[in-house]
Amino acid sequence: MKTQNSSFPLNAWYAAAYDVEVARSLMPRTICNQKLVLYRQLNGTVAALEDACWHRLMPLSLGHLDGDEVTCGYHGLVYNAQGRCTHMPSQETINPSACVRSYPVIEKHRFVWIWPGDPAKADPALVPDLHWNDDPAWAGDGKMIRVQCDYRLVVDNLMDLTHETFVHGSSIGQRAVAEAPFVATHGDRTATVTRWMDNIDAPPFWAGQIKHALGYEGPVDRWQIIRFEAPCTVTIDVGVAEAGTGAIPPGGNQGDASLSQRQRGVNGFVLNTITPETDGTCLYFWAFARNYCLGEQALTHKLREGVANIFREDELVLEAQQKAIDERPDYAFYNLGIDAGSMWARRLIDGLVAREQSGKAAASGVIPIRSVA
Amino acid sequence: MKTQNSSFPLNAWYAAAYDVEVARSLMPRTICNQKLVLYRQLNGTVAALEDACWHRLMPLSLGHLDGDEVTCGYHGLVYNAQGRCTHMPSQETINPSACVRSYPVIEKHRFVWIWPGDPAKADPALVPDLHWNDDPAWAGDGKMIRVQCDYRLVVDNLMDLTHETFVHGSSIGQRAVAEAPFVATHGDRTATVTRWMDNIDAPPFWAGQIKHALGYEGPVDRWQIIRFEAPCTVTIDVGVAEAGTGAIPPGGNQGDASLSQRQRGVNGFVLNTITPETDGTCLYFWAFARNYCLGEQALTHKLREGVANIFREDELVLEAQQKAIDERPDYAFYNLGIDAGSMWARRLIDGLVAREQSGKAAASGVIPIRSVA
Amino acid sequence: MKTQNSSFPLNAWYAAAYDVEVARSLMPRTICNQKLVLYRQLNGTVAALEDACWHRLMPLSLGHLDGDEVTCGYHGLVYNAQGRCTHMPSQETINPSACVRSYPVIEKHRFVWIWPGDPAKADPALVPDLHWNDDPAWAGDGKMIRVQCDYRLVVDNLMDLTHETFVHGSSIGQRAVAEAPFVATHGDRTATVTRWMDNIDAPPFWAGQIKHALGYEGPVDRWQIIRFEAPCTVTIDVGVAEAGTGAIPPGGNQGDASLSQRQRGVNGFVLNTITPETDGTCLYFWAFARNYCLGEQALTHKLREGVANIFREDELVLEAQQKAIDERPDYAFYNLGIDAGSMWARRLIDGLVAREQSGKAAASGVIPIRSVA
Repeated sequence: MKTQNSSFPLNAWYAAAYDVEVARSLMPRTICNQKLVLYRQLNGTVAALEDACWHRLMPLSLGHLDGDEVTCGYHGLVYNAQGRCTHMPSQETINPSACVRSYPVIEKHRFVWIWPGDPAKADPALVPDLHWNDDPAWAGDGKMIRVQCDYRLVVDNLMDLTHETFVHGSSIGQRAVAEAPFVATHGDRTATVTRWMDNIDAPPFWAGQIKHALGYEGPVDRWQIIRFEAPCTVTIDVGVAEAGTGAIPPGGNQGDASLSQRQRGVNGFVLNTITPETDGTCLYFWAFARNYCLGEQALTHKLREGVANIFREDELVLEAQQKAIDERPDYAFYNLGIDAGSMWARRLIDGLVAREQSGKAAASGVIPIRSVA
Repeated sequence: MKTQNSSFPLNAWYAAAYDVEVARSLMPRTICNQKLVLYRQLNGTVAALEDACWHRLMPLSLGHLDGDEVTCGYHGLVYNAQGRCTHMPSQETINPSACVRSYPVIEKHRFVWIWPGDPAKADPALVPDLHWNDDPAWAGDGKMIRVQCDYRLVVDNLMDLTHETFVHGSSIGQRAVAEAPFVATHGDRTATVTRWMDNIDAPPFWAGQIKHALGYEGPVDRWQIIRFEAPCTVTIDVGVAEAGTGAIPPGGNQGDASLSQRQRGVNGFVLNTITPETDGTCLYFWAFARNYCLGEQALTHKLREGVANIFREDELVLEAQQKAIDERPDYAFYNLGIDAGSMWARRLIDGLVAREQSGKAAASGVIPIRSVA
Repeated sequence: MKTQNSSFPLNAWYAAAYDVEVARSLMPRTICNQKLVLYRQLNGTVAALEDACWHRLMPLSLGHLDGDEVTCGYHGLVYNAQGRCTHMPSQETINPSACVRSYPVIEKHRFVWIWPGDPAKADPALVPDLHWNDDPAWAGDGKMIRVQCDYRLVVDNLMDLTHETFVHGSSIGQRAVAEAPFVATHGDRTATVTRWMDNIDAPPFWAGQIKHALGYEGPVDRWQIIRFEAPCTVTIDVGVAEAGTGAIPPGGNQGDASLSQRQRGVNGFVLNTITPETDGTCLYFWAFARNYCLGEQALTHKLREGVANIFREDELVLEAQQKAIDERPDYAFYNLGIDAGSMWARRLIDGLVAREQSGKAAASGVIPIRSVA
């Protein structure tokens, strides 16, 4: 399996599955070019093993789960949740080298997170904050889709929402998004793009939401606060409020607008974490959480399917773009103003990868700058 | 995109589409390894642009046509029919380098012709003569098929019609074609193969045509005058006449037999132009035009579908042959007498390619001779 | 076609088809990376020619069979059963080099055997003994399946039947197979693995057979005598008998137990010969022959389909294993005790290949030992 010169760091937590996907059965999944088998143990915690028997490389996911142990479906070698072989056919002694790799796992905010790099560095504090996904003050749900593109193209897509105007014209797109000014800032592991659109007509999606939740029809203030956390998580604080109301805090520090300041509006969080599956494919986990009409299960269902339709539009664009890039590997890309956010995201990713590949400490100060894409 | 060391010259007109294929919408098409988007402008003329946005390579054919301009379906960059960017999202200034390539286009004889090489050399006089395709003295129609083979295999196929006997035995094939003598000649850009079959039984296709048009049943003189024009156009003057009548001119200069000399026969032109799509695939445009029963629309329809069935037989052969060649790249091919016409066609093509790749003037006198295939 | 550095010797008889597959028509088949066309001549014997016309490589299998000659479906060149061209279109003289390769063929034990190497070495005595497949003392039938794996993985599979326990648990598998001791021996071209399971419950398949044939229900002695003959034939003498009866000969030399010593049991032979099709695919010919209820055609039918279901389980395992091996070409395999038989088979194969590739005589004494897989 190719892991060198890849475009992603290995020392990071990656979402491998939605919580409900992992049950009392053997589920294969590929993360960062590594094939894994996931299963839930009797105590409810998730185990993640290399999906290849030590003996003849047979995928363990084609075997059997007995208690917390996996039996290979070819010659019957048995492995425990730590990857150690505990039984071999027709012999008493077990070869001491007989084991498969096991991976650090954390289940948090409805995702199963895997650390494909050095287990000693797997710090639980580094799991990205996606708390809106299981916070009782928010309601929502999401999906996972497999997209045939480099995970960074999805990051690019999310860091510049002007594309909504052209890709999602029937739902959330409107000219205002492509025309409104925005501010891009960044930190050591994060980049943020903030765009406010004051006193505009709401696009179809949001017009429907604010009317449903608050009975309001009329001009709105609309906001998009996109926050990237390296290497591959993007949360987007989105919503609309009655034009001129508290959506914009008095001091004008819009990025810090608190929930209480938006009480005459509707607020959602688009949660995205995009896991490299291979160099050319990714697993795109997303959810949409809202702060209104929390008890309406039908609304949750409707929003999940509606957002899924929007993301299918992105999928077509992303796969077409990847194909075009593959055909012209030497193309020199130009950047526009709208690319500021994705350029910062790319620099942060490149920095993580470069530091990891050069073996330097993660605390190294200088982030190398490379041309985008 | 690979354009070096290809088997086709770039400085040539290639059919990219039938006229009716290009409408008020964005149509992607690949010509000589280059991806294009074609559309018809408001004034009816056809525009051809590189099918990749300058910004992120998104295929423009997935965008929108507004007036004569194309809007990219990802971030909304707008291009005019000359390929110049006229609008960028969220910014006033347009980067002066922002453009995509536009291609010379000519619409003639029912085909849309593209010049993929140096635009300065795109001389309209070089469009191949396929006038039978929209001459009121002729009636007919055709199709385009995509064949999974090097375009030169189609040229080979057309330059030696002995294959009719073995590939098209139920329609136009007969032993006489494989047994009759033929004459092969050539010029600077053309090669011609002429075969006359005197006083024979007509094959099923032609027996039906001459009976339908002239009520004649009986032995015929049959002719095939194949004319290749480099790099990829082949017209075939075909037909049968009452045996012993004016089909063969008195002086015996058969290649010059004029229409008036064939009044006791039926005459058709098989028009073929084969555009390299990629190195291993081609777009095969063909038509069949006749000089009899001009007003019978049902006959036009029937002949188009009948010829399409014949060409499907060729398609199977050509794709099987390409696959076999790919599997044995070092095979040294032997030539038979029947290959004389295709050998000349290959030499003319090789000469065009060699002169173009060596950068010498097209007027260079010596044509290098290479082994066939 | 790649023939160098392959994992199989060329100087060997390989099953190319079941007898009934070859009729009065042109059948393409690939053996050891070589494309062949097979057909039955008027006198009933099978001819095997290279499946590519000398002229333009058109597959001859897409042509026509006339008498004992093949006409190419493109330009009509005709070849006799020895591969010599006997007719060319439009010319009197036939190029003396015009021929395609013909292969030595033997039809024996219901298989059509081809020798893809040096014809001078094609000794009929080297055809593997699969006489059970047409011996009147035995009844049975079989199938051919195309498996997407290196043929040696099928050999591995057959040389270690502990996998029955894990792959075929519902039919022939039982823990006893994985737990019983076995003996592995070998000769110059053969390797044998013998496993006896005394006084056990019969697995579902054999419990049904002994009850049907002999009316017996109760504990059995079960045996598996696996015999490999290089490079790719494996016969397996299998069966069960009343526990404690003559299945095990008095002297205890179990491997030589004759038929008469097993009269209170049921005996079958699983016949397998696995022909490399390409480096990564194989044609797996198998049959199951029994020595009981010889006249029951319905039982023959039922056993063939039942065994086919078992082999489908193997197919899934083998193709998953091949895919995993392809993904990790540098994996260093460990061998267990159960791998003794396949290790010997591999050594014998490696020895044949090495001797053939080094050009040494087949009689060379020392067999080089290489690591498995």
